[in-house]
Amino acid sequence: MSLSNNQLKLITSLRRKKYRNLHKLFIVEGIKGIEEFLNSSFQLHSLFTTDETIFQSYSSTVISETELSQISALKSPNEVLGIFKIPEEKELELKDLTIALDDVNDPGNLGTIIRLCDWFGVQNLLCSLHTVDCYNPKVVQASMGSLTRVSIHYVHLSDFLKKLTIPIITADMDGKSVYEFSPPKQSILIMGNEANGISNEVELLANEVISIPRFGMQKETESLNVATATAILLNEFRRKR
Amino acid sequence: MSLSNNQLKLITSLRRKKYRNLHKLFIVEGIKGIEEFLNSSFQLHSLFTTDETIFQSYSSTVISETELSQISALKSPNEVLGIFKIPEEKELELKDLTIALDDVNDPGNLGTIIRLCDWFGVQNLLCSLHTVDCYNPKVVQASMGSLTRVSIHYVHLSDFLKKLTIPIITADMDGKSVYEFSPPKQSILIMGNEANGISNEVELLANEVISIPRFGMQKETESLNVATATAILLNEFRRKR
Repeated sequence: MSLSNNQLKLITSLRRKKYRNLHKLFIVEGIKGIEEFLNSSFQLHSLFTTDETIFQSYSSTVISETELSQISALKSPNEVLGIFKIPEEKELELKDLTIALDDVNDPGNLGTIIRLCDWFGVQNLLCSLHTVDCYNPKVVQASMGSLTRVSIHYVHLSDFLKKLTIPIITADMDGKSVYEFSPPKQSILIMGNEANGISNEVELLANEVISIPRFGMQKETESLNVATATAILLNEFRRKR
Repeated sequence: MSLSNNQLKLITSLRRKKYRNLHKLFIVEGIKGIEEFLNSSFQLHSLFTTDETIFQSYSSTVISETELSQISALKSPNEVLGIFKIPEEKELELKDLTIALDDVNDPGNLGTIIRLCDWFGVQNLLCSLHTVDCYNPKVVQASMGSLTRVSIHYVHLSDFLKKLTIPIITADMDGKSVYEFSPPKQSILIMGNEANGISNEVELLANEVISIPRFGMQKETESLNVATATAILLNEFRRKR
């Protein structure tokens, strides 16, 4: 067996959000990642591999290295590529802590934040409608299978927040030190866009603004990257739980 | 004026460590980054710009957009590219907290860690000889000018550590919880390689091993990325100071 033209066209189209949404499919690459999706509630659509001994209990199409490099989004393709179905969004049930992203653009940042939610036991991640798509291949790659364990919901963020009754906390450079902050029993923590931070409409809805103290003396120091800031704040919320 | 063949050859060669070390030069791209290096103790070698109104007080070569894209290491080149001299390593004087990296490979991770050291006031960053070069264009890009404020020293890590009398602390999955850990007045914290963690020779020299507690229930969760783990641990060391 090898790759048909239709398969080639379908798979490469899935690098774009428009076609992922149209076909309700997304790409996972590499043995470890695919294994995690196979062992989750995600449904497999098709599997392509250069080595027929991999995933023998699933039906797969054996393809050449050249074919794999044609369908892979990676610089160094990794023996196997799987197509999975995009599941229906689960019903959202807020737990003690929810993270929300206000237009996070970078796929690597979203992937890292999904992994952090998994590590720190945050079940729900809310994304504003302009946040990068969580089924983008680079996000799937960076999230290392954590996508199978964190529920991600795309919402109109300010409209959603207006209906909430739990405290809304935003992270911003000029907020109160997180060291002097006691996390409420239930809350939603919002992280902003890489360049612009929290948007004005969301800022207006915040009950509290927190920040990470800077210890370096130089004022020129850029703000922390949104993924590293999320790491520090999640750790602060959890250790005080 | 435009770009000579010799200049083109020199600049593109600087993407490789071998030629950076040979010429003792490295590349900085973008107005903001170059501004920070110009305002630091780093010495400018040459400046190339597509807009003659930028950095008028410095002598620069005006080049075309096409020429800039030839010499730029970025996908979307950014008006100006500067070549700076690699300074002599400063004499190392250990402060209260030093970070050391045991073969960190990814340029984005090193850049983020340099930025974190800057934020948390860590003056010295030690890198094992196999850690990615801090003058790699991707590291310079990711460190956002923090490279001008953090002293980076490449050393044979285990030999260096053997001579130390201050506590050596390593970060590892099966260490003691950092929440139960009190940072000594002076110490060195070592972060390991992305795939393999701390090397055996370094592990043998550790006085204490610390870890970041996982709150998620699933054991499948990958360990945290080295840059996000560094963020959390630096925050823990500093807030307890």
